Amino acid sequence: MTHPQPIADIARSIGIPDEALLRYGHDKAKVDLDWLASLPPRRTRLVLVTAMSPTPAGEGKTTTSIGLADGLRALGEEAVLALREPSMGPVFGMKGGATGGGRARLLPEDDINLHFTGDFAAIAAANNLLAALVDNHIHHGNALDIDPRSIEIRRAIDVNDRSLRHIVTSLGGRSNGVLAETGFDITAASQIMAVLCLAESRDDLRERLSRIVVGERYDGGEVTAAELSAAGALTAILKDALAPNLVQTLEGTPAFVHGGPFANIAHGCNSVLATRAALATGTITITEAGFGADLGAEKFIDILCRQSGLRPDLSVVVATVRALKYHGGVPVRDVAAENVEALRAGASNLLRHVENLKDVFGQNVLVALNAFDTDTPAELQAVADLLEPLGVRAVTSTHFTDGGAGSIDLARAVLADLEKPSETTFCYPEDVSLAEKAHLVATRVYRAGAVSWSKGARRKLRGLEERGYGRLPICIAKSPYSFAAEKLMGAPSGHTLPITDVRLSAGAGFVVLIAGSVMTMPGLPAQPNAVDIDVADGVLTGLQ
Amino acid sequence: MTHPQPIADIARSIGIPDEALLRYGHDKAKVDLDWLASLPPRRTRLVLVTAMSPTPAGEGKTTTSIGLADGLRALGEEAVLALREPSMGPVFGMKGGATGGGRARLLPEDDINLHFTGDFAAIAAANNLLAALVDNHIHHGNALDIDPRSIEIRRAIDVNDRSLRHIVTSLGGRSNGVLAETGFDITAASQIMAVLCLAESRDDLRERLSRIVVGERYDGGEVTAAELSAAGALTAILKDALAPNLVQTLEGTPAFVHGGPFANIAHGCNSVLATRAALATGTITITEAGFGADLGAEKFIDILCRQSGLRPDLSVVVATVRALKYHGGVPVRDVAAENVEALRAGASNLLRHVENLKDVFGQNVLVALNAFDTDTPAELQAVADLLEPLGVRAVTSTHFTDGGAGSIDLARAVLADLEKPSETTFCYPEDVSLAEKAHLVATRVYRAGAVSWSKGARRKLRGLEERGYGRLPICIAKSPYSFAAEKLMGAPSGHTLPITDVRLSAGAGFVVLIAGSVMTMPGLPAQPNAVDIDVADGVLTGLQ
Repeated sequence: MTHPQPIADIARSIGIPDEALLRYGHDKAKVDLDWLASLPPRRTRLVLVTAMSPTPAGEGKTTTSIGLADGLRALGEEAVLALREPSMGPVFGMKGGATGGGRARLLPEDDINLHFTGDFAAIAAANNLLAALVDNHIHHGNALDIDPRSIEIRRAIDVNDRSLRHIVTSLGGRSNGVLAETGFDITAASQIMAVLCLAESRDDLRERLSRIVVGERYDGGEVTAAELSAAGALTAILKDALAPNLVQTLEGTPAFVHGGPFANIAHGCNSVLATRAALATGTITITEAGFGADLGAEKFIDILCRQSGLRPDLSVVVATVRALKYHGGVPVRDVAAENVEALRAGASNLLRHVENLKDVFGQNVLVALNAFDTDTPAELQAVADLLEPLGVRAVTSTHFTDGGAGSIDLARAVLADLEKPSETTFCYPEDVSLAEKAHLVATRVYRAGAVSWSKGARRKLRGLEERGYGRLPICIAKSPYSFAAEKLMGAPSGHTLPITDVRLSAGAGFVVLIAGSVMTMPGLPAQPNAVDIDVADGVLTGLQ
Repeated sequence: MTHPQPIADIARSIGIPDEALLRYGHDKAKVDLDWLASLPPRRTRLVLVTAMSPTPAGEGKTTTSIGLADGLRALGEEAVLALREPSMGPVFGMKGGATGGGRARLLPEDDINLHFTGDFAAIAAANNLLAALVDNHIHHGNALDIDPRSIEIRRAIDVNDRSLRHIVTSLGGRSNGVLAETGFDITAASQIMAVLCLAESRDDLRERLSRIVVGERYDGGEVTAAELSAAGALTAILKDALAPNLVQTLEGTPAFVHGGPFANIAHGCNSVLATRAALATGTITITEAGFGADLGAEKFIDILCRQSGLRPDLSVVVATVRALKYHGGVPVRDVAAENVEALRAGASNLLRHVENLKDVFGQNVLVALNAFDTDTPAELQAVADLLEPLGVRAVTSTHFTDGGAGSIDLARAVLADLEKPSETTFCYPEDVSLAEKAHLVATRVYRAGAVSWSKGARRKLRGLEERGYGRLPICIAKSPYSFAAEKLMGAPSGHTLPITDVRLSAGAGFVVLIAGSVMTMPGLPAQPNAVDIDVADGVLTGLQ
């Protein structure tokens, strides 16, 4: 077990005084929101870490973010991380912990992977109080005339539990309320998670919570959380959860780890307040976006940057030689063997992401190759050769085995590229229709030939346009494993993006477009990770 | 808003060093379990605060506990409180906060009433992981041959939500698991809450979790959490929650506030570890038990004392003149008016509790009269006169308006009575049958004439005896408002206690006998407290 430094020391190292530090034990803390809000604006730099399309071979986006920050520290920069906090559910399922690995890790990893500072619990509690208030309103006479069939608020829980995906509630007679069909999502998939991650302040949080649409009246008008007088209570539940959490890497780099929205039906980035906290307390902030750049970086820019005004100064695209070979058709069991030809074929995936970031989003781009022992010089040279025409460098990083020392080259390259001017551009303007926004993302980023709409999706879209939500950005939920909605490797073109459903996330401030099916509640595997976890003599094992 | 002292100062005042203090912000902390376990045994005194049968007129058990501790401090004693933590669900429903009131309060009250240090969330998470593991086991082939109709683990959530009382899960096809009828209890009603509150150490917690019976095989044999390999993961989830929380009263008296099990289907006392922490760090510990002495004190002694070896040195029974009049037949709207005759009639309730504590449980007893402005000298004299034949004093306390200064007389009386020898006795021995235990509690404490058993209850009881659970203590869930299962005021005798259901709580180490119906998930009222709660400029309003 590795012992982290006292969190107060880490905090002091970036100018956070003890009064502004709300400690959770010796090695975790929240930072006071009022103190953060009082800081003068500072021109520091923001690096977005994103990735090629994820594969079972693994890319290591989080370890690269951590390694890069540690490497920058080793060069004397005041680098600070802003990352998502893990969901506890998957820790007991297939995935295990989500705090990096090797020598590129966050501490205290067990705590971060379990309850951490209680943010997920608070988000679930707020979500579930709102759901209970809606049902309670209907039970006690339904003065707002809510159509029970229209209720959009599901319940939330941070457990992988397939049994709760689709349930019937209020059985057992009159005193148990009005029978309803509903279900639970994992907490990370709740709208309130996205709301918390996009909120700029307590007041903004309250505003966003007020705007949540819980369902419709029988006459078609919408009913908001504000009309249920719920926004104050939800804000109260979330008042501590809104403050960013501070922890550290194995090498003592400060890390704000806060918020963990899904990267499909939400925008998949840590909280805006955590990123702002990092920007205000360091000289370079390293943050990351979920999945590949087609999903994570697109939403980071089109949703988070648009809403917050934040702009990345550089985008780092994480790739591995193994994952490139996988995209070139090599099965995962064979990705260790040299195969320059397959790598060249699969590199189309990386090149497409790089092109998009440059051409669609105006980014300075650098490629980070997360090194494996099995990478060969010929393979590494092939990647460099392929990127050269785009004017983009690929820098190898061995942070997993070497920590920050292994990321020095990457850190130097980042510092050099940060000297280049950068101007972030959006994929679509605010003032085109939701359908046009979908068309622009599909054709410009996914390189689809067309967008198809189900009848229901088209009807919902029209309704949202009519109710004035047309100016919101869109959040497309689709397979993360490909530019297409189906699993097409490499860099497919001309495919069709099939939108099957549309959901309003008025509090978060976006409209979700679902391409294919989307899983908002995972299940446990036949041999869940839970059975390997134990505590003996106060030591927890089996979690990592 | 009242500002508490830094919790590190409070901790140091009772000898807890900074290294052993796991702070949660500036004014809450957990105390390291290993440090607590390392303390040498110390002969300090334990005062149990219990009460007459509760009424809508209010008795003020928690405020009296707090006032008494503050009063003892004012006299120079090192008094420390050990109390239950509130459930968040009812905060948004009918009840509001549960941290005392007036000048007899715990700080920081908003935090304690909301998430506090996350214990309830951890307990719900452990409970719900266990439920998911059971369903997952059946979904993936059911190697243990669990009869799905036998599953005893419901899910838990800390929200008042009637819609979740009775649900059907796993709708929507094969991939969503095996259809089941189940429901959610409020977290305080979960077996894991009782387990945590009775656990003596991490190892004991793990042992207790292992013993939880999740259901039966088709062949009738029982299936435990251990057989699902779940105990390690549940212990991991609860590892921080097991450590007692330290806060303070308005007057700076240290208070361990930890665990909040229901006082009907569980034993209704704070954690054993919190009581031990208080005993180890002070000279007098004030703790309380839920509801009236027939429920709370009985379970405190017959369950908690029996399991832990703890023994109260004195029992303080809280009463109010108003509540006595209510028990004497005065409607709640009229309890402010002097009515000595009704008071005399209703005092039968108080006298019965005092007699039980003395005769059945061997307690030194003192009555604390929680004063109201409307109490008259004639009424107070009548209470004193009625208690005199029992050799018990009634001492008035004005802690609600005056804080510890208002409890000086009560504190002096407590100190005097602590000089008397005390020997706690149980209502029933361990080695009689469960039915005989029920008979002894019913006739000796409730003064019932008989116990009746439903067919199902009798069958379950027989099964438990056969499976070797006959030596466990019993935990009777019945109406708290009367010695009877129905609402009979005063001191009824000769009634029948109807046991309608029996539930094993093997992890907690007791068998629950349900008399009448028992509510394990509250609902929200038509005008829930939630609608009055708000946060503006960082200040929370409407919670108290």
